[in-house]
Amino acid sequence: MPRVFIARLAEAIAAKGSPVCVGLDPVLERLPQAVRNASGTPAAAIESFSLGVLEAAAPVAPAVKIQSACFERYGSAGYAAMERVASRARELGLMVIYDAKRGDIGISARHYAEAAKNLGADAITASPYLGPETIEPYLEVALGVFVLVRTSNPGSAPVQTPALMDGRGVAHHIARIVSRLGQDHRDDALGLSGVGAVVGATQSSEGAALRAVMPDQVFLIPGFGAQGGTADDIRAMLRPDRTGAADAGVLVTASRSIIYPNPDSGVEPKKQVQNETAGDWQKAIAAAAERMRDEIAAAVTPERV
Amino acid sequence: MPRVFIARLAEAIAAKGSPVCVGLDPVLERLPQAVRNASGTPAAAIESFSLGVLEAAAPVAPAVKIQSACFERYGSAGYAAMERVASRARELGLMVIYDAKRGDIGISARHYAEAAKNLGADAITASPYLGPETIEPYLEVALGVFVLVRTSNPGSAPVQTPALMDGRGVAHHIARIVSRLGQDHRDDALGLSGVGAVVGATQSSEGAALRAVMPDQVFLIPGFGAQGGTADDIRAMLRPDRTGAADAGVLVTASRSIIYPNPDSGVEPKKQVQNETAGDWQKAIAAAAERMRDEIAAAVTPERV
Repeated sequence: MPRVFIARLAEAIAAKGSPVCVGLDPVLERLPQAVRNASGTPAAAIESFSLGVLEAAAPVAPAVKIQSACFERYGSAGYAAMERVASRARELGLMVIYDAKRGDIGISARHYAEAAKNLGADAITASPYLGPETIEPYLEVALGVFVLVRTSNPGSAPVQTPALMDGRGVAHHIARIVSRLGQDHRDDALGLSGVGAVVGATQSSEGAALRAVMPDQVFLIPGFGAQGGTADDIRAMLRPDRTGAADAGVLVTASRSIIYPNPDSGVEPKKQVQNETAGDWQKAIAAAAERMRDEIAAAVTPERV
Repeated sequence: MPRVFIARLAEAIAAKGSPVCVGLDPVLERLPQAVRNASGTPAAAIESFSLGVLEAAAPVAPAVKIQSACFERYGSAGYAAMERVASRARELGLMVIYDAKRGDIGISARHYAEAAKNLGADAITASPYLGPETIEPYLEVALGVFVLVRTSNPGSAPVQTPALMDGRGVAHHIARIVSRLGQDHRDDALGLSGVGAVVGATQSSEGAALRAVMPDQVFLIPGFGAQGGTADDIRAMLRPDRTGAADAGVLVTASRSIIYPNPDSGVEPKKQVQNETAGDWQKAIAAAAERMRDEIAAAVTPERV
């Protein structure tokens, strides 16, 4: 079940040689002008752009993370676009991580799990606040899960860092719960579990401590690139006994720095891209994904003795 | 802003004389046979049922809570059904609480807020794990927010109850954050804020303590009825200085006990309802909502001296 997910993910990472995950967070105002001109509705524009990103990134990235909010924003039309985008991602051989940060219980949680399956997702992101029973329904339908543990946004500190009676922070406590929950979903050959954790690249000072608590978890690491996370930040979160990218225990995700690759030079984004043709923007995305792959690959490859 | 939400909610509660919120969690297998027979697809069946529930409950309930998972489970077709159901709820004068338990940051949170607005929601439920900045985007578009503080499911304890260094539990800490966040969105005449809290009916032992921390919050209270919460449990969570149902600071939600009102006698649910006609099941729902209204009204009305 989620063991199948983790084995497939490791295989995909090995095949591409790097744990790069493209964050697909399409925002209408930032799309290339060529895409917006050719699309009749906002939902059609984000769909067309997303399909173009998938094509450009598929040779480089083993996985794509689809941000549900960007599609839900356009209601049922946006949701239908997301269905087609997820379907195309699978056709292109990409692992699909449904970034929905869902968190409910009972039949509602089971329905969210069905929704993710229907979408063709391989894994989902989930919030831990309602307890382990909010995670289990995903595992029961063989989805991988990435539980929010320590996120990259500065504003998360008031909730995630206060210390419990044993001196450990709330995020550390959640990490222990995730680690325990993951034990039954572990691929022993890989030493990795189908229950992973979201740990922000900008939290690298805590990264090593969280890795010690969660030795079997794949860390889905947002915040690389535009949010300031670097390859050094990633290094602190690797599994110490890794032999290569596939069992390094990380999946590094970048969104803005890949899908809007123009240097953010203070120029109004609309201006930056208005003269681009379809070929141009896709080439720029492919190049950005390659740059990130190379940076990350260097970071996760064990040093030769 | 969210002040408008809280004023409208209080007005709706005063008009109906009771803070009953119908939880619309339609599950295909539990729908009346008449509805299933008449509907071509699962999404059409839950839509038809939901519209019938709204009609039956509107004379009694000031608000409806729409469980997003039950609609998302059927993909874009389910989402489109949810759009029509929310639209109909507004036509019937019901306040619409979008029970989506969303929790994201930055542009994603803003997109979730837009999605809720597009749906015609008056308020949304939200998870606090990513910090206050995950709540603010909803307030910025004038949505009310009910933040998950202490939930009714037994499995929430490992996350919500561990004590911080000051001896208070995690939920208590979140309550303080919610209370602070709510100060800028307070209707002074009512003494209530547009930032509310989800506090389960089954957590009444903590209810009074949470009320002390969150004097201005409307408690959205799930767990009444099928999950075991009673009118006595509600009483512990009322605002002490209330003058009536409208400023009692609670919105009590029940789902299964209202929308599937047949006594759960161990009989297979399908069997219970197969002989019902459309008129029958709607009458049973209206009666169940009235019973709940009367139970809750007695509990929230201040004792006469």
